[in-house]
Amino acid sequence: MHLGRVAGTLVASRKEPLMEGMKLLVVRQLDADNAETGSYVVAVDAVGAGEGEIVLYASGSSARQTEITRDRPVDAVVMAIVDSWDVGGEERYHKGREEGRTG
Amino acid sequence: MHLGRVAGTLVASRKEPLMEGMKLLVVRQLDADNAETGSYVVAVDAVGAGEGEIVLYASGSSARQTEITRDRPVDAVVMAIVDSWDVGGEERYHKGREEGRTG
Amino acid sequence: MHLGRVAGTLVASRKEPLMEGMKLLVVRQLDADNAETGSYVVAVDAVGAGEGEIVLYASGSSARQTEITRDRPVDAVVMAIVDSWDVGGEERYHKGREEGRTG
Amino acid sequence: MHLGRVAGTLVASRKEPLMEGMKLLVVRQLDADNAETGSYVVAVDAVGAGEGEIVLYASGSSARQTEITRDRPVDAVVMAIVDSWDVGGEERYHKGREEGRTG
Amino acid sequence: MHLGRVAGTLVASRKEPLMEGMKLLVVRQLDADNAETGSYVVAVDAVGAGEGEIVLYASGSSARQTEITRDRPVDAVVMAIVDSWDVGGEERYHKGREEGRTG
Repeated sequence: MHLGRVAGTLVASRKEPLMEGMKLLVVRQLDADNAETGSYVVAVDAVGAGEGEIVLYASGSSARQTEITRDRPVDAVVMAIVDSWDVGGEERYHKGREEGRTG
Repeated sequence: MHLGRVAGTLVASRKEPLMEGMKLLVVRQLDADNAETGSYVVAVDAVGAGEGEIVLYASGSSARQTEITRDRPVDAVVMAIVDSWDVGGEERYHKGREEGRTG
Repeated sequence: MHLGRVAGTLVASRKEPLMEGMKLLVVRQLDADNAETGSYVVAVDAVGAGEGEIVLYASGSSARQTEITRDRPVDAVVMAIVDSWDVGGEERYHKGREEGRTG
Repeated sequence: MHLGRVAGTLVASRKEPLMEGMKLLVVRQLDADNAETGSYVVAVDAVGAGEGEIVLYASGSSARQTEITRDRPVDAVVMAIVDSWDVGGEERYHKGREEGRTG
Repeated sequence: MHLGRVAGTLVASRKEPLMEGMKLLVVRQLDADNAETGSYVVAVDAVGAGEGEIVLYASGSSARQTEITRDRPVDAVVMAIVDSWDVGGEERYHKGREEGRTG
């Protein structure tokens, strides 16, 4: 899985019937030090993530292993909202303690 | 999933029998700010997308989860036409309001 | 799927039994403008492609969705020979009209 | 599979129900010469790996082939702790003999 | 599939039970011209490949399609030892005729 920041949402009214009823998030990828990598992914929201939140997303066939994405043509899903992580004994992110960032 | 602009179509008359009856699109990948990344993909059209339209496509085994691609040897499918998306509270694309771009 | 030019063939006599009876092609990847990207893939031939021909190949589990590759340990298959494609209204390739290129 | 060094752990209390009960590791990818590549992955721990240990991880659908990850929305799993490896006849890593490194 | 040179072996005594009994190879990736790309993969050996040999490996779910890797958490398998390949009519490698190279 990779880390990302929810940067926005996407609307698509004309779509494959199996795409109905899912919220689509624009997620900017983060590296292990909480910096943006420049990559993004459009992922289905399986946990009610809001804009600006740091999330974990899964890609490929694993993205179809949640209740709302099963057997649907989606290759990325946000399946956890991150509370914190550390690298080398130092906290790199802790929800609610981060500085303001733009999406 | 990733964002793309339909740049053209591809014709292949000699192919695996399971490839019959599908429209093949040349899709240029877009980043989250609506700029071309330089990458492309050839994807099956599952939604009737036209040249110049901004679409969402799925890759890998997830590309086989639409009615017309099921069990076929395809690894990319266009399964939604994008109306709009925003990043950091600003709209980056809204169908019908974009400036002209060449494919 | 991605575009490629068949650059050559590969011979391997000592292999997993499930690899028997398949022709292996060395395929140089092309971009949407018909230029080589520098990447390559070794793919199973499912359509009788010859050296120099422009083809379409599928990767990952989708490569196992043809009659000859089903349930075999292969992750790339050539499943169509390209006649033509266009980008932005201009033909980028048309079989039989291209200039000579070396593999 | 790829080599990595366990750099830290990640906590996420709000998540897809299928994500419950798994330990999430932040793993920095290593190259074949035991140097960090700059990439990372968040992987489920299937072997009780500790911070600083050199591990092997699998990605994609293969990450769901362990007892604790089966049918869950995870795309990376640590499934072995590395004792040693050699390249060109020279040992590049041997557990317990490496020099100190920061995560 | 991609080409690689077997550079060494890897030992891991503490691992997921499904990883037992498989030989793990460190494989340096080669390009179509038989030069190292700088990338590597740790792959299960399905054909008895020895150090220095040029091999073909499959990635992703396709790596689980051999007798010894079926349903195991592995995402790369060496399933053929290469005899020769050509590009543009010229042989780029022929087993037994190559010059000496270090791993």
